[in-house]
Amino acid sequence: MSNMFANRMANTHKSFIREILKVTADRKVISFAGGLPNPQFFAVQEVADAAAKVLAEDGENVLQYSTTEGYLPLREYIAERYSEKKGLEVDPDEILITNGSQQGLDLIAKVFLNAGDRVIIERPGYLGAIQALSIFEPRFIPVPLQQDGIDTGLLKDALDLNEVKLFHTVVNFQNPSGITYSREKRLELAEILKRYETILVEDDPYGELRFAGEDLPSLSSYLPGNVILLGSFSKVIAPGLRLGWICAPEDMMEKITVAKQASDLHSNYLSQRIVYQYLCDNGIGEHIVKIRKAYGRQRDAMISSIEKHFPEEVEFTRPEGGMFIWVTLPEGASALRLFDLAGGEDVVFVPGSAFYVDDGGTNTLRLNFSNSNEYEIEEGIKRLAKVMKKLLAPDK
Amino acid sequence: MSNMFANRMANTHKSFIREILKVTADRKVISFAGGLPNPQFFAVQEVADAAAKVLAEDGENVLQYSTTEGYLPLREYIAERYSEKKGLEVDPDEILITNGSQQGLDLIAKVFLNAGDRVIIERPGYLGAIQALSIFEPRFIPVPLQQDGIDTGLLKDALDLNEVKLFHTVVNFQNPSGITYSREKRLELAEILKRYETILVEDDPYGELRFAGEDLPSLSSYLPGNVILLGSFSKVIAPGLRLGWICAPEDMMEKITVAKQASDLHSNYLSQRIVYQYLCDNGIGEHIVKIRKAYGRQRDAMISSIEKHFPEEVEFTRPEGGMFIWVTLPEGASALRLFDLAGGEDVVFVPGSAFYVDDGGTNTLRLNFSNSNEYEIEEGIKRLAKVMKKLLAPDK
Repeated sequence: MSNMFANRMANTHKSFIREILKVTADRKVISFAGGLPNPQFFAVQEVADAAAKVLAEDGENVLQYSTTEGYLPLREYIAERYSEKKGLEVDPDEILITNGSQQGLDLIAKVFLNAGDRVIIERPGYLGAIQALSIFEPRFIPVPLQQDGIDTGLLKDALDLNEVKLFHTVVNFQNPSGITYSREKRLELAEILKRYETILVEDDPYGELRFAGEDLPSLSSYLPGNVILLGSFSKVIAPGLRLGWICAPEDMMEKITVAKQASDLHSNYLSQRIVYQYLCDNGIGEHIVKIRKAYGRQRDAMISSIEKHFPEEVEFTRPEGGMFIWVTLPEGASALRLFDLAGGEDVVFVPGSAFYVDDGGTNTLRLNFSNSNEYEIEEGIKRLAKVMKKLLAPDK
Repeated sequence: MSNMFANRMANTHKSFIREILKVTADRKVISFAGGLPNPQFFAVQEVADAAAKVLAEDGENVLQYSTTEGYLPLREYIAERYSEKKGLEVDPDEILITNGSQQGLDLIAKVFLNAGDRVIIERPGYLGAIQALSIFEPRFIPVPLQQDGIDTGLLKDALDLNEVKLFHTVVNFQNPSGITYSREKRLELAEILKRYETILVEDDPYGELRFAGEDLPSLSSYLPGNVILLGSFSKVIAPGLRLGWICAPEDMMEKITVAKQASDLHSNYLSQRIVYQYLCDNGIGEHIVKIRKAYGRQRDAMISSIEKHFPEEVEFTRPEGGMFIWVTLPEGASALRLFDLAGGEDVVFVPGSAFYVDDGGTNTLRLNFSNSNEYEIEEGIKRLAKVMKKLLAPDK
């Protein structure tokens, strides 16, 4: 059967990033390519203690099938943290536990998107969202990011010209750009969205990883009832546990639960119990303080290396949190060509075009600073600067 | 937005079974409704030992992101077991680890089904498959089961009259009917399928749970290249670990991997490492022997209680493995009415109509024997017999 696959698979391909990651298992390569947290800071002993405890105290239940919605005490914990940290009033029944927030994106696409439905996505946009949503064949409308968040003028135009089903945004330390929406931009955005029926997906895996500036309100606090929040334990505890959540209004949650049930019955119950036990015994605060400090140091190291070594005409963002810095080469310079040259110097990154649903971004790149130590950062940036100079001024 | 949901969600609803399960948390209710393994036989200590070991020896890796395909040594183990147990030559790259075989069904639907594509399903059919596939809006063609497997005459008619994309089957101890395809039926089926391009999905979560009769070949051994196998650790180790697998030819596997990546990046890595460690330290054989014996005893108890107490005109299957017995009331009797009466006696089961994509099965029901002890089985069947007699001969 030549056309045995569904139409939705026609334009899909493996993630370029994950293919890069396979190559960079080689130890001598310095990788700024991934989006991995630093495993050095994983609370391995505390997770092991939590695992031992839940299996010893309640093993038969921990290993049995469980509810589609997820472990209630864990959902209560998440609801309470929304209240404490963001002032959001969320009912635990408005939370469903997923396999990382990637599955949240898949479920949202499944529940809301017909082929051809319009989806606004940031430009550059989060690759995981582009992949998950693409499967359900939407028409993407990319709206550019500015230094303080999305271009609200262009956003308004896009909403006026089209019936838009979803708008996906990462308001804190966006992947790939590192950009955070300012308070003013959040307010302005909320005012605009109030006039449309577009569902806002506020994807916030990095929100807890702020090492500079002040915490800002969730868009959900301005737009109750029409926002779906996505959260994750991957960055604040560990990604191998594959746990995240969807927080959505009750009328949406009913369909999301049906979709979750059809997708895999429920998320890993052992992991849910481990994470809840870990949170009870350790809280979340201390570990977050530790990684915030570490990632802040790593970001500072990368920024100061860039300032020292990169050619002056190269621009870059200065994120207040998260894991990424976004670099813009002069117009016309090719980040793909830079990628090839960098390979020769054993340093890798992700060419920015991967984050564009149109043909843009050819002169941009994403650098990850969370998964390299300060020595590797200095050395890697130096190598990158060397090939950048070669690319930008080949005759010198 | 009144019609904010995607069309695919229009006819979905929560699983009746899972709603029943919520009600039956009450201890005095005897439940033959679920499809749960008996937690009494979970190897809790061995799983705890494996968890402690992998976290102590390789914690930073165990908690990090991992590959979409799944942990290679675990895939190698599965490939080797196919070779030993079924004589199938499978490359580990033809195996992808999923969140239970339910996710295998979701990924297959995602990769292969356009809305309106035809899917042959057994009548009665596996509810999890009906739910997972329904989301992708196929047209189901139910083909009746006989005592020794699917009705091959009607199957041939269905294949001749329609272009059929997929055929989903559970050849061993089918859920819900308990029926196993005979050797002759398997051969006949393979001969028929050779003449069509229909992809066969051989879903085999119970195959290891045989307590009577002889192991029979996988359909894949007769039909190489056009069969997708689904397997699961839920029944042979524990379901809370949420691990299963898809085994598919390489050309299909590429698209399946893309779909998995978009769905949730990869399956729970901690669980994968625990399961592999568990298998290395304990093997799979000893535990399986234990549960086979136990489930065999439980089945025998249920059969002999049924023989003793049920009215003579009620028919039932005698499974050689698995977890379910299928009961057929006389034509015209309502299993839903029986369900209501049984509730009054604190005993529950699943009315058979849940397993039909048409309006059939109103006089059938599914009984689970794996999750009740012999006392509960005798007592529950007695209660059920009492209300059955009331239903079938109300005037006596």
